Amino acid sequence: MKKGNLLYGQSGGPSAVINASAYGVIKEAILNEEVDQVLVMNHGIEGALEEDFHYLNDYVDQIELLPNTPASAFGSCRYKINAEQDLPKLVEIFKKYNIRYFLYNGGNDSMDTCVKVNDYCKEVGYELYTIGVPKTVDNDLPFTDHTPGFSSAAKFIINTMMQIKLDSEVYKKGKVTIVEIMGRHAGWLTASSSVATKEGMGPDLIYLPERPMDLDVFLEEVKNIYSKQKNCLIAVSEGVKDKTGNFIGMMNQKKDAFGHTQLGGVALTLGGIIEDKLGLKYRAVELSTVQRSASFMRSKTDVIEAIEVGREAVRRVVSKETGRMVVIKRISNDPYIVEYDTHDVREIANLEQIIPDSMIGNDNFMMTQEFFDYIYPLIDGGYKQSYSRGTQDFFQINKNKKTV
Amino acid sequence: MKKGNLLYGQSGGPSAVINASAYGVIKEAILNEEVDQVLVMNHGIEGALEEDFHYLNDYVDQIELLPNTPASAFGSCRYKINAEQDLPKLVEIFKKYNIRYFLYNGGNDSMDTCVKVNDYCKEVGYELYTIGVPKTVDNDLPFTDHTPGFSSAAKFIINTMMQIKLDSEVYKKGKVTIVEIMGRHAGWLTASSSVATKEGMGPDLIYLPERPMDLDVFLEEVKNIYSKQKNCLIAVSEGVKDKTGNFIGMMNQKKDAFGHTQLGGVALTLGGIIEDKLGLKYRAVELSTVQRSASFMRSKTDVIEAIEVGREAVRRVVSKETGRMVVIKRISNDPYIVEYDTHDVREIANLEQIIPDSMIGNDNFMMTQEFFDYIYPLIDGGYKQSYSRGTQDFFQINKNKKTV
Repeated sequence: MKKGNLLYGQSGGPSAVINASAYGVIKEAILNEEVDQVLVMNHGIEGALEEDFHYLNDYVDQIELLPNTPASAFGSCRYKINAEQDLPKLVEIFKKYNIRYFLYNGGNDSMDTCVKVNDYCKEVGYELYTIGVPKTVDNDLPFTDHTPGFSSAAKFIINTMMQIKLDSEVYKKGKVTIVEIMGRHAGWLTASSSVATKEGMGPDLIYLPERPMDLDVFLEEVKNIYSKQKNCLIAVSEGVKDKTGNFIGMMNQKKDAFGHTQLGGVALTLGGIIEDKLGLKYRAVELSTVQRSASFMRSKTDVIEAIEVGREAVRRVVSKETGRMVVIKRISNDPYIVEYDTHDVREIANLEQIIPDSMIGNDNFMMTQEFFDYIYPLIDGGYKQSYSRGTQDFFQINKNKKTV
Repeated sequence: MKKGNLLYGQSGGPSAVINASAYGVIKEAILNEEVDQVLVMNHGIEGALEEDFHYLNDYVDQIELLPNTPASAFGSCRYKINAEQDLPKLVEIFKKYNIRYFLYNGGNDSMDTCVKVNDYCKEVGYELYTIGVPKTVDNDLPFTDHTPGFSSAAKFIINTMMQIKLDSEVYKKGKVTIVEIMGRHAGWLTASSSVATKEGMGPDLIYLPERPMDLDVFLEEVKNIYSKQKNCLIAVSEGVKDKTGNFIGMMNQKKDAFGHTQLGGVALTLGGIIEDKLGLKYRAVELSTVQRSASFMRSKTDVIEAIEVGREAVRRVVSKETGRMVVIKRISNDPYIVEYDTHDVREIANLEQIIPDSMIGNDNFMMTQEFFDYIYPLIDGGYKQSYSRGTQDFFQINKNKKTV
C-alpha cells in the first residue's frame, strides 16, 4: 500500500551538484512502493506555503540532465519560517496533498526549517517523516565528513587559482593579485586553494576566517614576496577579520533574513591598502557565484556522492526515520571509502563547522598534511559533462508551464 | 645545410592557447632542416634585449604539456621598442646567436614589433626572416577570420554566462547581475555571450563598445525586465562608452577608505546607477583574467588552430617569407573548413578589427544569424585536458634554472 506523497525542496545558495541530489531523490522515490507521487516545491518552503509545486511527470524526458545542471533547478529560497503563521498553514497543505515524506535540501538554515517542520508535525500529531539532504559549497555542516557541493567548488577554485597564478606571473614586473573566495565563517574553500600551491602554481598567501588577520604582518609578507618575485598571489576568504574581530570586507552592512551580515569587497579593500601603503599595483578578483555554479569541471566524487545522499534520504525517510540529516562518514582516505548515515538534524541546524586547528599550518600560506589527505580524494575524477555545439546541456523547467 | 637559429617569443596578454602555438612552432622547427636550434625569449622582446633565452632541450620532457597550459609559459611583455637604442642592439644579439628566423606571437602591438624588427634588419642588410603568429582573446586582429585564443575565451564566457543565469534566477526575487567582459574597443567576447541567450540561458541585455550606451534607455530596459522576471542578467564590455564617447567605467571615480581614487569597473558603475535610480539590488561580476586563461573547457577547434598557426609560421619563415603574419581563412561554415595563409604584417599592426554592423542586431540583446554562423564552429568540440589527482597537468619552466 502506498503511504503518501513525497515533497522535496531546495533551499539556500545554489551549488554545482544540488540537482544531482534532486536526481537521487527522484530516481529512488519513483521506484519506492511507499511513495505515491513526488512533488517538488517551487522555490523551497516559500513555494510550499503557496502550494506552488512541480509534478515530475512533466519533466520526465529531461530528468537525466539534472546531474549535469548547476544552481537550483527547482528554485530556492532564503525564507525563515514564521512558527505561528507558517507551520499550521504548512500542515494544512500537507494534509491537502497527502504529503507524508518531507525532504529538504540545503545548509544550516535549511536544516533549521527541517527541525521546525518536524517538531510542529509531531506536536500536532500529523504523521510526517522529515530528512535533511546536505548541500553547501562552504562545507560548514557539522557531523558530516564533508558536504556535497564543496568538492566541486574546491576543484574549480584550485584549478582556477593555478590558471590565475600562471597568468599573473607572465610579466617581468607584475601586480599583486588578490582573489576573494566564498566562506563567511568557515574557510574551507579558501583553504582548498593551498592545493594549487602544493602543485607548484598557487597563492603565495592564504587568509582564512579561522585566523585573525594582522594587517601589518600582511603588508610585510606581501612586500617581501613582491620584492623577490615581482608578483604576489593572495587567496582571501570573504569572511576574514582583523585582530579586533571586524570583517575586513565590511563595505555593506546590510543583514539578510537570517541576520547574517552581507559581505563583499575584501579583495578590493586589501588592494587599496596595498596600493596605499606599499605603492604596488593590484588586481582584485572576486570569484563570485561562478565558483559555486561551475559545472564544466566538477569532481566525479562530488556528483556521485550528491546523488547518493539524495537516494539515502529517500531510503531513510520511507523507513520512518525523521528529524535527521544524511551524513557522509569517511572510512578511509586511500582507497577513498565512505558510508552514508544520518544524524540528529537538531544538532546540525544553525551550527557551523570551521576548519580544525590540526589542518591549519603555522604559516599563513599552507595547510597541513591532514588537510591535503582530506581534500585530494574529494576533488579526484572528472564527471563528464555533455555538450551540444560547444554549450553545456542543462535541465531547465519550463517557466511558463503551470504544473499543478 | 642548416641555415641558422630560430627565435620565438610571446608578447601581450596571456591566452588559453598561446602555448599551443608555441608547441606548433617548436614541433615544426625541430624537424626542419633549415633550423639549427630553437631559442625562446624569456619575456618576449624585453628578454631578447638582455640575451635572456631558453633552450628547448631543457624542457624536452615536458613539451607535450604545452598545449594543455594556459597563459604565456615563456613569459610575456608589453614592451614598446625604442627604435634608436633597441634595434641596433637586437641585430648585434641576432648575429651573436646566429638568429635568422624570428617568430613573434601576439596581438596588435606585437605585430608592430615584427614590423620594426623586419624593417630595420632589411635596412642594415642583416638577413632575417620574420613572421607574426596571431594571438588575442579580443579577436581584434584584421585580415584573419578570427584569432587563436578568442574561441576558448568565448566558450568559457558562454558557458559561464549560462551558469550565472541559472544561479541568478533561483530566488523568487533576485538581483540585477552585471557581468563585465574583456574587450576595450572590440566587443567580440561580450557578443559571444549572446550564444548563451540563444541557448535559453543567457544575458537579457548585452552592451558592446561598438554601440554607444544610452543610460536612460538602459535603465528603462532593466526596469522592464526586472519587473517581469524579478531578476536581470546583463553582459557588458569593459570598453563600453556613453553617448558622448566617455568610458562608462571611468564614471565611478569614488574615493575609497584610504582617500585615493578608485577606478571602479563598468559592472560596479552600472550596478551603482541601478541601485541609485531603480532601487534594485545588484551583483557585479568581473570575469577578470579567469576568462582569458581558462583551460579546463577549451574549444578543440581553437587548440588545433593555435598549433597550426605555429606550424604554418615555421613553414613560411623557412621558405623566406618575411614581414607577414599567419592568418586563418574560413572556406566554409558547415562543414567548418579553414585554410592558413599570410598577410602583410604592416597592414595588421596597430589596427583593430571591431564587429561588423551586419553581425549586430537592432536590439541591445541579440546578435544576428551571421554572428551565430560565425561563432558556433569556433566553440565546438572539447579538447581533453589531462588531470592528476584533480588538478590540471601544466607545463612549467623551472624558474631557478639558468638555461643559457
